Amino acid sequence: MKILVINGPNLNLLGTREKGIYGDKDYEDLCDYIKESAKELNLEIEVVQSNYEGGIIDFIHNAYNNFNGILINPAAYTHYSIAIYDALKGINLPTVEVHISNIHKREEYRKKSVTAEACVGQISGFGFHGYKLGLQALKEII
Amino acid sequence: MKILVINGPNLNLLGTREKGIYGDKDYEDLCDYIKESAKELNLEIEVVQSNYEGGIIDFIHNAYNNFNGILINPAAYTHYSIAIYDALKGINLPTVEVHISNIHKREEYRKKSVTAEACVGQISGFGFHGYKLGLQALKEII
Amino acid sequence: MKILVINGPNLNLLGTREKGIYGDKDYEDLCDYIKESAKELNLEIEVVQSNYEGGIIDFIHNAYNNFNGILINPAAYTHYSIAIYDALKGINLPTVEVHISNIHKREEYRKKSVTAEACVGQISGFGFHGYKLGLQALKEII
Amino acid sequence: MKILVINGPNLNLLGTREKGIYGDKDYEDLCDYIKESAKELNLEIEVVQSNYEGGIIDFIHNAYNNFNGILINPAAYTHYSIAIYDALKGINLPTVEVHISNIHKREEYRKKSVTAEACVGQISGFGFHGYKLGLQALKEII
Amino acid sequence: MKILVINGPNLNLLGTREKGIYGDKDYEDLCDYIKESAKELNLEIEVVQSNYEGGIIDFIHNAYNNFNGILINPAAYTHYSIAIYDALKGINLPTVEVHISNIHKREEYRKKSVTAEACVGQISGFGFHGYKLGLQALKEII
Amino acid sequence: MKILVINGPNLNLLGTREKGIYGDKDYEDLCDYIKESAKELNLEIEVVQSNYEGGIIDFIHNAYNNFNGILINPAAYTHYSIAIYDALKGINLPTVEVHISNIHKREEYRKKSVTAEACVGQISGFGFHGYKLGLQALKEII
Amino acid sequence: MKILVINGPNLNLLGTREKGIYGDKDYEDLCDYIKESAKELNLEIEVVQSNYEGGIIDFIHNAYNNFNGILINPAAYTHYSIAIYDALKGINLPTVEVHISNIHKREEYRKKSVTAEACVGQISGFGFHGYKLGLQALKEII
Amino acid sequence: MKILVINGPNLNLLGTREKGIYGDKDYEDLCDYIKESAKELNLEIEVVQSNYEGGIIDFIHNAYNNFNGILINPAAYTHYSIAIYDALKGINLPTVEVHISNIHKREEYRKKSVTAEACVGQISGFGFHGYKLGLQALKEII
Amino acid sequence: MKILVINGPNLNLLGTREKGIYGDKDYEDLCDYIKESAKELNLEIEVVQSNYEGGIIDFIHNAYNNFNGILINPAAYTHYSIAIYDALKGINLPTVEVHISNIHKREEYRKKSVTAEACVGQISGFGFHGYKLGLQALKEII
Amino acid sequence: MKILVINGPNLNLLGTREKGIYGDKDYEDLCDYIKESAKELNLEIEVVQSNYEGGIIDFIHNAYNNFNGILINPAAYTHYSIAIYDALKGINLPTVEVHISNIHKREEYRKKSVTAEACVGQISGFGFHGYKLGLQALKEII
Amino acid sequence: MKILVINGPNLNLLGTREKGIYGDKDYEDLCDYIKESAKELNLEIEVVQSNYEGGIIDFIHNAYNNFNGILINPAAYTHYSIAIYDALKGINLPTVEVHISNIHKREEYRKKSVTAEACVGQISGFGFHGYKLGLQALKEII
Amino acid sequence: MKILVINGPNLNLLGTREKGIYGDKDYEDLCDYIKESAKELNLEIEVVQSNYEGGIIDFIHNAYNNFNGILINPAAYTHYSIAIYDALKGINLPTVEVHISNIHKREEYRKKSVTAEACVGQISGFGFHGYKLGLQALKEII
Repeated sequence: MKILVINGPNLNLLGTREKGIYGDKDYEDLCDYIKESAKELNLEIEVVQSNYEGGIIDFIHNAYNNFNGILINPAAYTHYSIAIYDALKGINLPTVEVHISNIHKREEYRKKSVTAEACVGQISGFGFHGYKLGLQALKEII
Repeated sequence: MKILVINGPNLNLLGTREKGIYGDKDYEDLCDYIKESAKELNLEIEVVQSNYEGGIIDFIHNAYNNFNGILINPAAYTHYSIAIYDALKGINLPTVEVHISNIHKREEYRKKSVTAEACVGQISGFGFHGYKLGLQALKEII
Repeated sequence: MKILVINGPNLNLLGTREKGIYGDKDYEDLCDYIKESAKELNLEIEVVQSNYEGGIIDFIHNAYNNFNGILINPAAYTHYSIAIYDALKGINLPTVEVHISNIHKREEYRKKSVTAEACVGQISGFGFHGYKLGLQALKEII
Repeated sequence: MKILVINGPNLNLLGTREKGIYGDKDYEDLCDYIKESAKELNLEIEVVQSNYEGGIIDFIHNAYNNFNGILINPAAYTHYSIAIYDALKGINLPTVEVHISNIHKREEYRKKSVTAEACVGQISGFGFHGYKLGLQALKEII
Repeated sequence: MKILVINGPNLNLLGTREKGIYGDKDYEDLCDYIKESAKELNLEIEVVQSNYEGGIIDFIHNAYNNFNGILINPAAYTHYSIAIYDALKGINLPTVEVHISNIHKREEYRKKSVTAEACVGQISGFGFHGYKLGLQALKEII
Repeated sequence: MKILVINGPNLNLLGTREKGIYGDKDYEDLCDYIKESAKELNLEIEVVQSNYEGGIIDFIHNAYNNFNGILINPAAYTHYSIAIYDALKGINLPTVEVHISNIHKREEYRKKSVTAEACVGQISGFGFHGYKLGLQALKEII
Repeated sequence: MKILVINGPNLNLLGTREKGIYGDKDYEDLCDYIKESAKELNLEIEVVQSNYEGGIIDFIHNAYNNFNGILINPAAYTHYSIAIYDALKGINLPTVEVHISNIHKREEYRKKSVTAEACVGQISGFGFHGYKLGLQALKEII
Repeated sequence: MKILVINGPNLNLLGTREKGIYGDKDYEDLCDYIKESAKELNLEIEVVQSNYEGGIIDFIHNAYNNFNGILINPAAYTHYSIAIYDALKGINLPTVEVHISNIHKREEYRKKSVTAEACVGQISGFGFHGYKLGLQALKEII
Repeated sequence: MKILVINGPNLNLLGTREKGIYGDKDYEDLCDYIKESAKELNLEIEVVQSNYEGGIIDFIHNAYNNFNGILINPAAYTHYSIAIYDALKGINLPTVEVHISNIHKREEYRKKSVTAEACVGQISGFGFHGYKLGLQALKEII
Repeated sequence: MKILVINGPNLNLLGTREKGIYGDKDYEDLCDYIKESAKELNLEIEVVQSNYEGGIIDFIHNAYNNFNGILINPAAYTHYSIAIYDALKGINLPTVEVHISNIHKREEYRKKSVTAEACVGQISGFGFHGYKLGLQALKEII
Repeated sequence: MKILVINGPNLNLLGTREKGIYGDKDYEDLCDYIKESAKELNLEIEVVQSNYEGGIIDFIHNAYNNFNGILINPAAYTHYSIAIYDALKGINLPTVEVHISNIHKREEYRKKSVTAEACVGQISGFGFHGYKLGLQALKEII
Repeated sequence: MKILVINGPNLNLLGTREKGIYGDKDYEDLCDYIKESAKELNLEIEVVQSNYEGGIIDFIHNAYNNFNGILINPAAYTHYSIAIYDALKGINLPTVEVHISNIHKREEYRKKSVTAEACVGQISGFGFHGYKLGLQALKEII
């Protein structure tokens, strides 16, 4: 079973910015955490990141014949990218949306998710651990 | 007479997804179809595709001195890209908007086209063939 | 392959009125243009016109076993004839809606098409040439 | 006692279209059914059909001195023809409105009947049988 | 000087219905009245009637090169026919709208005239005589 | 047969003001026109004018036993004089309202007629000629 | 001291389009102007342009350890890119927003800046010169 | 004690119009009734009538030094004459407003009295008898 | 230079009513005052008064060829007479509106002037003296 | 008799700006005009101007024992200075408000006068001449 | 080239208050900074400050023939002074508005600028340095 | 302990105006009362007054290093001076707002205090005594 983990814009900045909020852990730490979680869950994974709306669409397309599911954190694009929604709909793989912070506790415009409609479910507010929960969810679904 | 054909996000997925709706023909087939149509119409063309809003803008700019018209299917960006609208307005070449499916039969928010106001006309609902029609329309206009 | 071309109310007035807007070409010219286009496309066609809502419905019904597709410009009836919509739905032949002017650039009440929902697609804004494009579209579809 | 049965636009298409919905019975079958029902009820009848708003008005006018009542299915015109309403009001014969499907279970705009205001009552949703019920109602009234 | 007098739907019913309101005079009487009025006024006229929206449009078109003006009573179509409005606009002959009853004393929706905006003026409330007045008005205008 | 023609406020100014709009013909010309029309129609008439609301009411009352009908142009009072409406209702003589310009093409508050509801009908938009038409209408009615 | 100057979508079109509005100076001229200004101000700069939302985000991220400040003209993205706002917030370098035209004098939807809240300040309305002012502002701030 | 009784527009028509509603009693009968009532009440009175807003104002002014109170039926002017209101306010004599019919049971616009604000009270709905009640009220007040 | 001074309803009551407010000076005093003012200003004048809306219109009309300007105090009619507004517009003489009291300190509905839009300016609040000021203003304007 | 003439903010700019609108006459010309008017009227005056809200209040206070009346043009402060209103109320000298242009014909927010309620009256629309009229008004009042 | 720099209310308090926000630099430091900037830019300047609305208007007027441009920080008056707006409009010199803090990050009512509409552009958020930028902008413009 | 007492616009008028309301005591009496109160309370004070918004701001600024608190009656400026609010905020001395009359019992627009937000508290409605209460409050606070 192979899962593609897609991280959206600005997530590569983790650990180098606003440490007060996000802790000292950087993007590499996140990747390591995801990989260990996958190992524990006996899942083969690949972790990718892009700041481009189009780049994320490319990743989704590439998942088509090569993966069994997608774990995606679309970051800011969550709130306005119909194009990512279309991409997810198009390949129709089991997909779980994940957010590090609780988007339901933030600005009004961050509570609305355009992409969530093309996903099995959404996990939000559990920090890095959300990714592990997402992988578990996907394993169950697939 | 040289026409630039621009395809927007997710169109490259054609044929690998939702075959019930879109048929078995894939994006390569679409490109072949467009090229053959152009040959028949005695038009020199170039077909490009991008999942990136910026990529589409680049294509539009490159058309400026090198093409006589544009045939564009902006896909999901049709509905929210002010930047693509600005690009079309900026170079002011004869442009025809084409959609594979009939957007008048879809969700309310897909009936609205931000980009259509910068075009001569719109052809919608004829599958691949819409591209040939669009090329003919452009040939006539130019 | 036989196509029925149906023109709605007041189109027979072409060329005898408001030449500043519609040009000097009259309805006969339009018919000639459509017929030549058909010849070029190797399509057998019949061009009919009626100012009657019921007349247009009769034409649609008569097309049922005798034609392979319909090209229709419902003119003013586009905006309020549920009966024409029902007729098109009823015989379920491939139908293309065509408009000489770009209806997306006119009065608000002329942008809405009651009949478009029963068609394969819509071509709008290319003058007489829209009919040729519509015939090609039909040829392709059928 | 003589009743005029008037069928509106597109009813002549019965049986040749959308058999999944309307069954294999065609318009001739409907006519036969109505005629048998009339015989059973000992009513003299005549069955007519038109796709023209004006044609239906003509039928109504002709009923004036020749019939004792009208059974009418105005189909799509039900929803917007003030002219048919005026015709019914004008001759003032006992009239019953009938619909094969239940118009109250359909699109919002099909629930409103402009013509019903000029009728004794409306029967809707009983398939062909509605016509028999309508004839019985008329017999009773007259 | 030749005038075309067009009567709309249900006017042919005159005299056979609601005599309390409209008197015993029937449509033939109306026609005779109009013709005599024309003779008195030294006007060549032709009186036509149709219950069909399309029939009225045909009459209007035919007036184009053959008549100097139109006297029209669009009856129920007064209130919703964009197609008749388009026809009157299209041929642009001097036109007077006439109504037998005073539409300013009736239901709110009958006070609004879609067709009146394409006419010189309106005469309303004088029974048959309104036609004679309308003919005189046209004679004066032309 | 005797008709009272009542002209309301400011009509006596005709011809001395705003010639661009109303032409050079003055109030005397209007009176002459009305009188000649009356002679032609073999009607005995009297033409009166008043700028007074009460004056117009007096004229209406005086018509009670001395005239067979009234032709009235209430001018500005058309839009707010309940007292004139009451007077017309009170004597209940056949009355025709006439307006030189087409009030259906003017400011919104001038389209509303308080007095029209107490009249047989209204003639609007035919200049001086409207008075002749009004006299004929009255002749016919009486 | 090193500054990154980021230009958004369609700015590379300068001078080749709508010269009446933007003058003959093209994007190269703008770059030269910025570079000369930098030389005068003794600032090391790099000027980049992208039509890609993601491209602009990459530029912002790359600035993180390599530049002391950012001068940005986000063009059309100013009005809807939450992702660019997040990127600017994320790296937290001194940033100045600049606009060639005075956005306070344009369409309502162009007056709102999503990105401005993540900047030190905004300079608007001074043409090319605004870039020089922005560089000076950054020099001062840093 | 001397009272002025003022009757407004159209009251002089009493008895000659709409006998079904107002009975056969005419204005002279009303005057007689008022005079007898006054005699019974031992009041000296004078009864006047005018159809002119200005005429009624004149009567009010004349009452100034010659009468001890006013009984007024302003008829239609009740609803819009600020000028009569001003006149009543100006001379400041005890005034009673009277209406033959019950204005509170009539059209909405007849329920509002502009003139009532300058009166001691209003009596409405008692036919001729209302005048006697009004005189009694005035006797009491004065 | 000849000026017509027009006083509206109830102004003739001056001095005989509400002396606390308006002083002991009566209408004759006002007239004397206006005449003396005119003499001082070397203006030929005529002072007229009417309680009738129609009377005021007559005065305005009579001014047409006989006076060079109008000074008007329309009193209560200021607030609702479209007919007086039409009269002033019709003759188009320089007109100044004057009010004895300061209408800006009174009821909301008295602050609105229907007639003011047809005047050069307005003088309000200076008692009798406002007339002299108005005459001077007219002298200056003419 | 001594009058203080107070001019508000920006009036000192007269004649040096926007000559197309205000004419070539400058503030000195206005002062000369006012002084000559005063001489003619045999009034001792002093003309002051201030761009300060507080300055205008000081002028008003200083008038208290030294002047018999005030002529004030508060310019822009007319529309929002409660403090000037309080000052005028406080000293309670006869005050006249004057405006060069007719404020009843300008932007909605310039029609409202906060200061007018503390004045005897207002003169508006007569250019410089309004000051002379205001002085006369004051002479009369005092 | 001579520039007038105008500072509004409370700016003279700089450095003696809220040092946490505004730093230790006081108003004299600001003036020195502005003067040095001017020297560097080879501009002749004059720096003035007033807490008075009228004082600022005076400064603007005095600039009329003596300066080539204005740099203004209207502080609190930015948000409500129509009089300052009128003054800037009146003299029509090139003017740049500057704010020390970024007004786009403050209370909603401080984002609105009444005075900005009379300026070339706005610079906001760069502390003292905004003044230097403003001077350069003016130098360029003039 | 040193307190600055600031009186706003029009307070210097006390005793010379509207004695019925404010009594015969003039501004000097108020000053004496404040000074005696201060002596009793063992406070060193200085009493100042200005009619200028800017003047009051100046007093506030001057208090900065020289006083321990401020007692202020901003009079009319209370209701609209953001600039005074900014000044009080800027120096941040303990401030008490005082009003002679009860502003909560006056016009709606006088109930709102813009300046109160920058004060410790407000005392309103106790006449001169309010000043003594204010001084006591300040003594307590400081």
